[in-house]
Amino acid sequence: MSQPLNVAVVGATGSVGEALVGLLDERDFPLHRLHLLASAESAGQRMGFAESSLRVGDIAAFDFSSVGLAFFAAGAEVSRAHAERAHAAGCSVIDLSGALESARAPLVMASVNERRLAGLQAPFMLSSPCAPAAELCEVLNPLLGALDCRQLNLTACLSVSSRGREGVRELARQTAELLNARPLEPRLFDRQVAFNLLAQVGAVDAQGHSEIERRIFAEVRALLGERVGPLNVTCIQAPVFFGDSLSVTLQCAEPVDLAALTAILEATKGIEWVGDGDYPTVVGDALGQDEIYVGRVRAGQGDPCQVNLWIVSDNVRKGAALSAVLLGELLIKHYL
Amino acid sequence: MSQPLNVAVVGATGSVGEALVGLLDERDFPLHRLHLLASAESAGQRMGFAESSLRVGDIAAFDFSSVGLAFFAAGAEVSRAHAERAHAAGCSVIDLSGALESARAPLVMASVNERRLAGLQAPFMLSSPCAPAAELCEVLNPLLGALDCRQLNLTACLSVSSRGREGVRELARQTAELLNARPLEPRLFDRQVAFNLLAQVGAVDAQGHSEIERRIFAEVRALLGERVGPLNVTCIQAPVFFGDSLSVTLQCAEPVDLAALTAILEATKGIEWVGDGDYPTVVGDALGQDEIYVGRVRAGQGDPCQVNLWIVSDNVRKGAALSAVLLGELLIKHYL
Repeated sequence: MSQPLNVAVVGATGSVGEALVGLLDERDFPLHRLHLLASAESAGQRMGFAESSLRVGDIAAFDFSSVGLAFFAAGAEVSRAHAERAHAAGCSVIDLSGALESARAPLVMASVNERRLAGLQAPFMLSSPCAPAAELCEVLNPLLGALDCRQLNLTACLSVSSRGREGVRELARQTAELLNARPLEPRLFDRQVAFNLLAQVGAVDAQGHSEIERRIFAEVRALLGERVGPLNVTCIQAPVFFGDSLSVTLQCAEPVDLAALTAILEATKGIEWVGDGDYPTVVGDALGQDEIYVGRVRAGQGDPCQVNLWIVSDNVRKGAALSAVLLGELLIKHYL
Repeated sequence: MSQPLNVAVVGATGSVGEALVGLLDERDFPLHRLHLLASAESAGQRMGFAESSLRVGDIAAFDFSSVGLAFFAAGAEVSRAHAERAHAAGCSVIDLSGALESARAPLVMASVNERRLAGLQAPFMLSSPCAPAAELCEVLNPLLGALDCRQLNLTACLSVSSRGREGVRELARQTAELLNARPLEPRLFDRQVAFNLLAQVGAVDAQGHSEIERRIFAEVRALLGERVGPLNVTCIQAPVFFGDSLSVTLQCAEPVDLAALTAILEATKGIEWVGDGDYPTVVGDALGQDEIYVGRVRAGQGDPCQVNLWIVSDNVRKGAALSAVLLGELLIKHYL
């Protein structure tokens, strides 16, 4: 590592941005000066950081040559509009939106494919995975050494926070309206999400896949390569405020040694295995934590070559924000 | 059909029992006299049926020789205690609990395996499937003519009504307590289910499977035979009051003709296919309906031999109660 850098967080006032700023603070991220940025309507707000109060600046007016590293957590539109400008100004970019072309901004997750950084040069232009892909890959990466996985099936139950603060507000409002027997008027979601499960998260393409399903598919492939075999992804919107819950089935070439898998999970930093008839949930275990929780590790009823996993994680803090911060720490330590 | 029979509903005051009584009424089920039965603590209540008010009798004191057909919807314990006695008294039994041995009480679903009745004699002793198995088999049965299915993966998100009235009350109570910032005290469930997803429904066995997962596995196998290949089942408890939501993946031997599948779904009575970017949900579509709703029919992103389905159904009315009533109608029409 050279000198501490100036760092920018774009989208600081959003839920992932706020978590990111909190993690930079908690972890004593090696930075000289932090710039918080947002679009014009959120600029001017103040946010706490390291016992000081920072004013959120307008990204449109920001000169990225004054920072060495920028986290983009404001969504696809802002990344498309400003990431190239930041990079051209000599700033390394870690984009959380998934909006940049993978050839232009390779996907890197510190714990999974650091090797992808070899051959790249500063200033970097990198993508950090979406929460469900990060969570799945963090758990599968150590397990795949002990498994010959031929196929992966995922049903991901996403919380409304995957749609940002507005999703959280909408579930709270809908729930209160229903409990008070007031007429329900969906706004962000296209129908009642309270006490209901929506079969898809956002609109679908001509093949029937939603954008988040396509993103998970592409990112798991990019992070784990061919080691998981064909991948099938379904994302459901659940009436849960925070936290992803993943129901995962791996089809393997041989009968699975469950004890070996749980031993790996127990030995892996950042993963908590919950067994003995107990199981983890987002509310009871994962929220606010930097660990991913894994439970219900079991073979298929009819096929010892199948293994099932239940993975829960704080999608905002752990899945999205921490993955980006760990990548930033890696860059600063070895590459910048 | 011979003379209209006297009919008994055991567990009439439970949620499935009540739905069953309602369906007998709505459908003008050919019966002479209806007896409503429950355990001692519920006996004495009155319930409406066909413009009259019936007193709920105590099952322990009931003489089953006075009825020709009895629906057992009171749960495993009551079925184990009284189904044999009813049958020995000459009464045909349709058991909804799943508690009876399959050799003693074969599983029959009117729309799927009526042929199973051949060779059996009155008085019958039959099992009717649990809601998720019934829902899955009703959709798959017509599709399997057009598919060479090698493997079936199911993640079933069950509503709290799968735990009966007490489950519904518990979700309502937990939700109200959380919204009013009162301390949460789980009772029926072992932890917070409101705004959370529980990884398992009830306790698990030494292999890690819950009772409902084992029941679905066995019942799908009994109803569809080997046509679905190895079957993998995960049941999740969702913070939804009523209705099952099933995320299903079929692995087939050949690329799937999606148009042919949706044409079959459209042509099948009792199934509503929802397409064109829309999708069904339990709250918006399935509740109170006698139809099963199917949406998100799509191939795997990486494998044209995969097909995904999203199935929603009113678990109490359609999945459990109507399956039993249709079996009863079949018996009365052709076999009693």
